[in-house]
Amino acid sequence: MHQLYFTPGPSALYPTVNLHLKDAINKGYLSASHRSATFKDIYKETENNLRTLLSLPDNFSILFTSSANEVWERLIQNTVENKTLHLVNGAFSKRFADIATDYKKEAVVYSAKEGEIVNVGEIKEDNEVELVAITHNETSTGVSQPLEDIQKLRNKFPDALITVDAVSSLPIVDLPYDLIDSAYFSIQKCFGLPAGLGVWIVNNRCIEKAEKLENKGIITGSYHRLLSMYKKGKDYQNIETPNVLGIYLLGKVAGDMLTKGIGQIRNETIYKAGVLYYGLQTHPLLNPFVGNERIRSHTVCVFNTKGESERIINELKKNNMVIGSGYGSFKSNHIRIANFPATGKEQIEMLADKINEIQ
Amino acid sequence: MHQLYFTPGPSALYPTVNLHLKDAINKGYLSASHRSATFKDIYKETENNLRTLLSLPDNFSILFTSSANEVWERLIQNTVENKTLHLVNGAFSKRFADIATDYKKEAVVYSAKEGEIVNVGEIKEDNEVELVAITHNETSTGVSQPLEDIQKLRNKFPDALITVDAVSSLPIVDLPYDLIDSAYFSIQKCFGLPAGLGVWIVNNRCIEKAEKLENKGIITGSYHRLLSMYKKGKDYQNIETPNVLGIYLLGKVAGDMLTKGIGQIRNETIYKAGVLYYGLQTHPLLNPFVGNERIRSHTVCVFNTKGESERIINELKKNNMVIGSGYGSFKSNHIRIANFPATGKEQIEMLADKINEIQ
Repeated sequence: MHQLYFTPGPSALYPTVNLHLKDAINKGYLSASHRSATFKDIYKETENNLRTLLSLPDNFSILFTSSANEVWERLIQNTVENKTLHLVNGAFSKRFADIATDYKKEAVVYSAKEGEIVNVGEIKEDNEVELVAITHNETSTGVSQPLEDIQKLRNKFPDALITVDAVSSLPIVDLPYDLIDSAYFSIQKCFGLPAGLGVWIVNNRCIEKAEKLENKGIITGSYHRLLSMYKKGKDYQNIETPNVLGIYLLGKVAGDMLTKGIGQIRNETIYKAGVLYYGLQTHPLLNPFVGNERIRSHTVCVFNTKGESERIINELKKNNMVIGSGYGSFKSNHIRIANFPATGKEQIEMLADKINEIQ
Repeated sequence: MHQLYFTPGPSALYPTVNLHLKDAINKGYLSASHRSATFKDIYKETENNLRTLLSLPDNFSILFTSSANEVWERLIQNTVENKTLHLVNGAFSKRFADIATDYKKEAVVYSAKEGEIVNVGEIKEDNEVELVAITHNETSTGVSQPLEDIQKLRNKFPDALITVDAVSSLPIVDLPYDLIDSAYFSIQKCFGLPAGLGVWIVNNRCIEKAEKLENKGIITGSYHRLLSMYKKGKDYQNIETPNVLGIYLLGKVAGDMLTKGIGQIRNETIYKAGVLYYGLQTHPLLNPFVGNERIRSHTVCVFNTKGESERIINELKKNNMVIGSGYGSFKSNHIRIANFPATGKEQIEMLADKINEIQ
C-alpha cells in the first residue's frame, strides 16, 4: 500500500514529479552534456520560473549548490572577513554559527530558547558585523521569525549583508528582497523534490563583497568561489557537472506552481496549517510546541506529545501515514508534520482525523 | 526517436536505471528521512556493493560528495598543510592543481603535452610533498597513466599520500589499493547514472593526516570536514541531506554489475575499445589523439578529426547517435566517445559502422 509522507524533508514528492522524471529520461536530458545548449535551456527555464515564482528583483542571481549546508559554508568563505551575527533559535541556525567558527570567524550569537525567537530589540548595533544570519523558518522546532524583524535588523545594520535561511519556507514566504542580500532553500522541502540540490539567491552586494575579499588576498574557496559560480551562472552553467535532474525538476515544478498560482498555494498552506493547529487543539496528548501563535511556522508544524511520539508515529504508520519525529533531543517529545505544497488539503484533513483517533 | 548517447559524462544511462528509479519512487525512498533506518539501509547496500565491486580493502572508507570537484577541494583542505605534487596531462588534472593554489598551497606541477603522460622517471623525490595527485584517466584528452607508474611514485614518495583521479575509469580500472591512499569517481561516467554525486575513497592515513592538521589548528572546512564525513559515514549517514536518489541508484547499479561480473564488464570494455580504435583506423579523417597505444584510454576514446568534428557530430545526430566534441581548445579538432558499461557491444559496433560511412 502506498504511503503518505508528511515528513519535514525529504518529504512527499510534488504530484507532477513522476511525470517530469519520465520526460527527463525519455528526452535524454540526463545524458546530455552539461555544456550543451540542451542543458543551458534547462538552467534558463528553471531560473526564469523561480524568478517569477519568487518575484525576485533583477539585482539577484540564482545559483545552485549541493545543499543548504554548502550555502552556509560559501557565505562564510565569500562574504565574511572577520565577524558574523547569528539569530539562533534551533539546531540549524546554530549549525550556521558553528560553520563561521570552523572558519575562524568571530560569530556573535543571540540565542532564543527552543520554540521561541530572538527578540530583535535586544540585539546591539555593531558596525563591525559583516553578515547577519536570520532563520526565517527553523525546521527543527517549527518556529518562524516574523518578517517585520528583518526591517528592524536592516535599520540596526545598514551596511552588513543580511542573509535569510528559508530552507523550509520558500516559495511560501514572500521575502522582502529590498531589505536582504541573500536567501537560500533546499528542494526537498517546499518543492517536494528528491534531495541533493540547494538554491542560493545572492544580490550584487554579495558579489561585491566577495570581490573585495579576493582583492585582499583572502581565500574564498575554489571551484565554488562565489565569483566563479556567479560568472558561470550568467552563462546558464555550473562549474562542476551538477545535479542536472534536480535543476530540471525544480524548473518544472516551479512552472507547475506558477500555473496553479503562488497566491493560491500560499492560501492553501495557511488553511492546512489551521487544520493542524486548530483541528488538534483538543487532543489530550498534543499541544503546539511554539506557544506564541505569531511565530508558529506554517510549513513545519511541531507538537509536544507528552513523550508519546513513538506511539503516535507507529499508530499512523499502520494507516500508511509517515510523520517526522522530534529533532535531536526532542526525538521522543515532539512530532513534526510537514505542511508543504505537495500535500493536499484532503490529506492534511485525513491526517488530523487519524491523529485525533489516537488517544 | 530514441537517441543513443556516447557522450563522456553525463552519459548513457545504465539499462536498469529506469527500473530502479520507479522502485525508488514506489517504495517512498525519496521521501524517507535521511536519518531513518530506511536510508541507512540504502547507504549500507551501496557501500557494500561498491566495496565488493572494487575489491576495496577494509582500511578504506567510502564517502559521498557532490562532485569530483568537491573531492579535489576536500583533499586539499584536509590532507595538505603546505605542498602538493600534480601530474598534469589535461584540463581536469590541471584544475586540481589550481584548487591547491586557490587554497594557497605550493603546487609542484609536472606537465605533459596534451595526449601524452608525465614521465614518472623525471619526477624528483621531495619529502616535503604531502599529497601526490595522479589522474588515471584524463577525460578531456583520453590519455591514461599506466598503473605501474603508481608503484614508481610510491617508491619516490614513501610518506606522501597518493590520490588517484579515476573519475571516468572506476570500476573498470583495478586500482592497486595497497599503493594509494585515496581515489574518487563521479557516478555519471562509468556507472551510467544521473549526475550529482561524487564518490571519495579514503584510507586511514588520510584520516590521520586530517586529524594532524586539525590538531595544529588548521582550517579543514566545515560541514564536509573529512573527519565529520568519516564519522557520520561509519553510521551510514551524511552530514547534510544528500543526493539520496544518486546513492540508491549507485548501489543498485553496482549490484547489477556484480551480478554480471566485473571481469566480464572489464573484458567487454577492452573489446569495445578495440572496435573503436581498430575499426576506425582506416578512416580518412580520424586517427587516435593519443599516439602511444600503451597510454590510450579504454573508457574515453578520443580521435583527431582534421577539423571536421562538427560535421561528424551532426551526421551522427541524423542517425540519433550523440557523441562528444573535443574538450576546450580541441572542440572542433577532436571527437570524444564514451566507452562505458552502459553501452553494449552492438551499439559500439553500430557507431563505428556509421562513422566509417562518413567520409
